[in-house]
Amino acid sequence: MSLIVQKYGGTSVGTTERIEAVAEKVHAFRERGEDVVVVVSAMSGETNRLIALAKDIHPDPSAREMDVLVSTGEQVTIALLCMALQKRGCDARSYTGGQVRILTDSAHSKARIEEIDAHRMQEDLTAGRVVVVAGFQGVDGGGNITTLGRGGSDTTAVALAAALKADECQIYTDVDGVYTTDPRVVEGARRLDKITFEEMLEMASQGSKVLQIRSVEFAGKYKVPLRVLSSFVDGPGTLITLEDDDDMEKPVVSGIAFNRDEAKLTIRGIPDVPGIASKVLGAVGRANIEVDVIVQNVAEDNTASLTFTVHRNELAKAKEVVESIAVELGASAVDTNSGIAKLALVGVGMRSHAGVAAKMFEALAKENINIQMISTSEIKITVVIDEKYLELAVRALHSAFELEEKDKVE
Amino acid sequence: MSLIVQKYGGTSVGTTERIEAVAEKVHAFRERGEDVVVVVSAMSGETNRLIALAKDIHPDPSAREMDVLVSTGEQVTIALLCMALQKRGCDARSYTGGQVRILTDSAHSKARIEEIDAHRMQEDLTAGRVVVVAGFQGVDGGGNITTLGRGGSDTTAVALAAALKADECQIYTDVDGVYTTDPRVVEGARRLDKITFEEMLEMASQGSKVLQIRSVEFAGKYKVPLRVLSSFVDGPGTLITLEDDDDMEKPVVSGIAFNRDEAKLTIRGIPDVPGIASKVLGAVGRANIEVDVIVQNVAEDNTASLTFTVHRNELAKAKEVVESIAVELGASAVDTNSGIAKLALVGVGMRSHAGVAAKMFEALAKENINIQMISTSEIKITVVIDEKYLELAVRALHSAFELEEKDKVE
Repeated sequence: MSLIVQKYGGTSVGTTERIEAVAEKVHAFRERGEDVVVVVSAMSGETNRLIALAKDIHPDPSAREMDVLVSTGEQVTIALLCMALQKRGCDARSYTGGQVRILTDSAHSKARIEEIDAHRMQEDLTAGRVVVVAGFQGVDGGGNITTLGRGGSDTTAVALAAALKADECQIYTDVDGVYTTDPRVVEGARRLDKITFEEMLEMASQGSKVLQIRSVEFAGKYKVPLRVLSSFVDGPGTLITLEDDDDMEKPVVSGIAFNRDEAKLTIRGIPDVPGIASKVLGAVGRANIEVDVIVQNVAEDNTASLTFTVHRNELAKAKEVVESIAVELGASAVDTNSGIAKLALVGVGMRSHAGVAAKMFEALAKENINIQMISTSEIKITVVIDEKYLELAVRALHSAFELEEKDKVE
Repeated sequence: MSLIVQKYGGTSVGTTERIEAVAEKVHAFRERGEDVVVVVSAMSGETNRLIALAKDIHPDPSAREMDVLVSTGEQVTIALLCMALQKRGCDARSYTGGQVRILTDSAHSKARIEEIDAHRMQEDLTAGRVVVVAGFQGVDGGGNITTLGRGGSDTTAVALAAALKADECQIYTDVDGVYTTDPRVVEGARRLDKITFEEMLEMASQGSKVLQIRSVEFAGKYKVPLRVLSSFVDGPGTLITLEDDDDMEKPVVSGIAFNRDEAKLTIRGIPDVPGIASKVLGAVGRANIEVDVIVQNVAEDNTASLTFTVHRNELAKAKEVVESIAVELGASAVDTNSGIAKLALVGVGMRSHAGVAAKMFEALAKENINIQMISTSEIKITVVIDEKYLELAVRALHSAFELEEKDKVE
């Protein structure tokens, strides 16, 4: 008998019919003798409904009261899921974050979990009950309701799994696992049976939306085996686990992640002296704009050019900041380009394999795709290219690294 | 400076616009230097929406989970009202029942308050904050969410007023006070400036729906001055207070309450021996049917007849019970009549005034209204009459006891 923590997101509990389907699934696990703790989100649409009520009253409502408001969304779901389980003769009990108690800091709307009291949950499990916990929420030392921010329900599930020393944390979503790349772009995209935490982090940070980065970090830190599965289709999903898992296939490249959400800024003709990059990026950072890929180069005339990417929504704001700095630095020009895409090869195997970058660049060159920026890490090579070549590039790389062939290991 | 506890019901907070109007009202009290604790219900319609979700899943959902579910309704309102207050520069903080903490017993859906921790509220008041508390809910010793059942928000307000030793507990509703009788029936019906707890209890139990009986009992027990006012129209409302209030007018009759919700059952020709009434009414009670007015008489042939009223919805069930008992007792007949109305004169003054009953019966006789049943208590005389004479009877009595003339004291 093992203990499983399962998390069902807003779409999976979006209607009473879907809540019944989740109850069926959970009940089946109980029938097989598993102990189950379920974490649920608000029914899809509910959080937006609540936010709209708040915005109706206050353009910038207090974070404390927003947390009181939106935390009701998950509270509705836990009660309904318990009722659906009880209808199936499956004893169940619901808990809000505060009832568990999931102790967090006081950073309303983006709180961090500090401690979990596993005591009541363990009592229920011993008594043969399914424990249903509201995701995304907790309570601070003063008893104020807090929420964990975006993706918070995944984090709740992982944190509960860590606190309860669960055998597995299962995240049910609307996809049936993690793929080598987006199946809408590459027909031969393949579901991965396993992937390491590090790879998953890189995939997530590159726009693969299956899991929230924070929950993956958390699972890695506490060594909680994490599995991504579909709420709607049965299947093994993808297990996210530690690298030193012995029977793990270790292909050089596990997947290709990409996104089109970024734009590029270049500041040219700046004096090539120390401190320029920090001056430019410092100003951007102070404006609360997150910077992703950064490349600096020196031109023949001994002036430098600095290029970096930001989220497209923040391009206008970033441009304003950079233009005012440009005057100060005596830069010759500021260019922007929002027609770009970012693409990354991810794989722990590339640590020990030379030539992955060369092979990647060759595959892109063969398709006449110009690389505008390159950035590398131990398990990832990122390139920025013209957006219009994105699909072509992903398909070329998927094929070059033979990701569609399931049994092939390089 | 005084401390006021205010309660706003579902209609008063039914939309974000109405919540803003409540915030305006509360803010005005703060501006005048009053300390204010506000108790709110769920936005009208919200509780029914939540119950419908539950019924969709389970025909008879667990009381514990129902409480988890429906308590979210008030939680939404407290957050929204705080936002509306903060927009007006009025510092405010919200609390769920569990956060306050309002400790109750574990009788889910009809819990009783055992203890209130006034500590956090007092801190906020001292800091100049408005305290906004979710009505209708609490938490039991095990940390489980409970609800107080029908009218629970009124009870929350009175209990908080008692715990905080508030100067007044104001219940805002959609009427502007307690009337001598229903203004829809008697044009000259007059708003009472004051009424005693006992009179209010009798009025409420006779169908005057302004306040829930339980909250009036509670206010009387803890001597909390209670005021009923309109959320929508400014005015002094009606103060419900202790009888020994010195400057209180003490008219013989304060008001006339009535209802048409009852039906009458008569069992005739039963042997006139001890224990008959208890046999009949015991069986009715065991069937969970509440009995109101009871009258027993002995006929010339030494058989007795017993008549009592029940809620109309329960007439069929009651008839079934009584018919089976009738056979056992050898009764000659069981009659029922649902075309009746109950009407009561209420007033603490009648304790010390003889002749009130005589005057009442005379006024009814003058209109040729036959009295089917009579029942009296210290501060109330109840009669059952044919339903079709109800309006006529109420108007006749209102005029006979000169209730429309404000300054007249008998």
